[in-house]
Amino acid sequence: MTSITLAQAQTIVAGTLKEGRALSLKPLSVVVLDAGGHMIAFAREDGSSNLRPQIATAKASGALALGVSSRVIGEMSIERPTFINAAAGLNPAGIVPAAGGVLVRDASGTIVGAVGVTGDTSDNDEAAALAGINAAGLAA
Amino acid sequence: MTSITLAQAQTIVAGTLKEGRALSLKPLSVVVLDAGGHMIAFAREDGSSNLRPQIATAKASGALALGVSSRVIGEMSIERPTFINAAAGLNPAGIVPAAGGVLVRDASGTIVGAVGVTGDTSDNDEAAALAGINAAGLAA
Amino acid sequence: MTSITLAQAQTIVAGTLKEGRALSLKPLSVVVLDAGGHMIAFAREDGSSNLRPQIATAKASGALALGVSSRVIGEMSIERPTFINAAAGLNPAGIVPAAGGVLVRDASGTIVGAVGVTGDTSDNDEAAALAGINAAGLAA
Amino acid sequence: MTSITLAQAQTIVAGTLKEGRALSLKPLSVVVLDAGGHMIAFAREDGSSNLRPQIATAKASGALALGVSSRVIGEMSIERPTFINAAAGLNPAGIVPAAGGVLVRDASGTIVGAVGVTGDTSDNDEAAALAGINAAGLAA
Repeated sequence: MTSITLAQAQTIVAGTLKEGRALSLKPLSVVVLDAGGHMIAFAREDGSSNLRPQIATAKASGALALGVSSRVIGEMSIERPTFINAAAGLNPAGIVPAAGGVLVRDASGTIVGAVGVTGDTSDNDEAAALAGINAAGLAA
Repeated sequence: MTSITLAQAQTIVAGTLKEGRALSLKPLSVVVLDAGGHMIAFAREDGSSNLRPQIATAKASGALALGVSSRVIGEMSIERPTFINAAAGLNPAGIVPAAGGVLVRDASGTIVGAVGVTGDTSDNDEAAALAGINAAGLAA
Repeated sequence: MTSITLAQAQTIVAGTLKEGRALSLKPLSVVVLDAGGHMIAFAREDGSSNLRPQIATAKASGALALGVSSRVIGEMSIERPTFINAAAGLNPAGIVPAAGGVLVRDASGTIVGAVGVTGDTSDNDEAAALAGINAAGLAA
Repeated sequence: MTSITLAQAQTIVAGTLKEGRALSLKPLSVVVLDAGGHMIAFAREDGSSNLRPQIATAKASGALALGVSSRVIGEMSIERPTFINAAAGLNPAGIVPAAGGVLVRDASGTIVGAVGVTGDTSDNDEAAALAGINAAGLAA
């Protein structure tokens, strides 16, 4: 398998939002990008604020841009703030250095896309993303 | 009703893609924006190319920016190319002057959002968008 | 007098919108900028679409940028499209090359600001702007 | 009520500036945005400096972007500076993380727009915004 299908992406979105409701999180926005960083599916729950599409996308796109989760990018941004700042300026979708952007891999470990979630705390956003990826039978 | 809910937006997306398959159209991308131009839901069918998310969004966002469908904007762009070009540069999401971006109105005629579709001919893109809006019981 | 006061700008806005209603124009947006191109007052009538603030501003700002009305810029854009296109890219607020952006002068002929109107045809937009400037006892 | 009308927005602006004069604040700039972040009304008092339109707008737009007041965004920017910095880069109007950007809600609690004020201290800017919202019979 070399890319996430729309059917898989929609399963990820549904699984992420189901987890958000199960955990009583604030309204979430969730995006699924392919390995090239191009959007496959997106959903913004009622009450999720205006910039959430861009924040979700910048978490996922940043993860693909640097090859690590946005949680790791958050850690890098503390140690090397000028590097992450500069990299964010180079990425058309930007980079948000906070947990919630998760790389998706196939059975062989190849990166096939990324999921980005925003709306609650970064830790909760990431937990919902992981639940969504799991619902689709894929690996983070 | 004062805005499109996520449930309605997902119904619009599903209805649009169902129409695309019924008409054997090329792979489609479809976006639903709220009245402020912020994304609620998006789907890109397998095989739909990289820039389709931005093109779908620029059709729908352009319709909201100028208050008319992207079909009318396409006509305006022939009569007044410099005006539409300048307006496109002012809209953060850009403006694509071709059919497929359709305003959505509530029962009172108030604009509550817009749908953007791309992937086949502009006429077919618009037909699929209209089918999606109809599937959600809303008016174009 | 060297600049438009807020009181004068609000009189221009009110006079412009009054003219729009008297002529039964579509919903208008109107901006008043000082000679430096910085906004003093703005109003968008109910039903005026999302990008109208930027379009009104780009008409008025363009007039100040080149020292002629946006009507003249529209004529220039036909004769010298690449020049106007390039200039638009240099102006942070952009340039919209269509009537409706009018320079405002004091009794000595010095430019003290500009008015930008959008929503109906360019000719009607300009007529409303001129009525607003007249209402404030200033000269176009 | 599903959106702020121009009449309401002009009442908010007048109420904000009246409060500023009652409290002898420095010259203020005040903007009212709809729920999508698009400008409805704006006024800049005589003596208010050049960038005030953008600062007022970035306070109000930032509040809508993240779904909280710009006062809260100011607190977030101390705890999570890289997140707010990144989000600011994603919002076309930017984000100013300081008090003075206040969300406006209708009777049902739905966000219908935002007010942004700048010119004096952030606390005073916010007090003037709240007075303006109150003058229009709306809730912060």
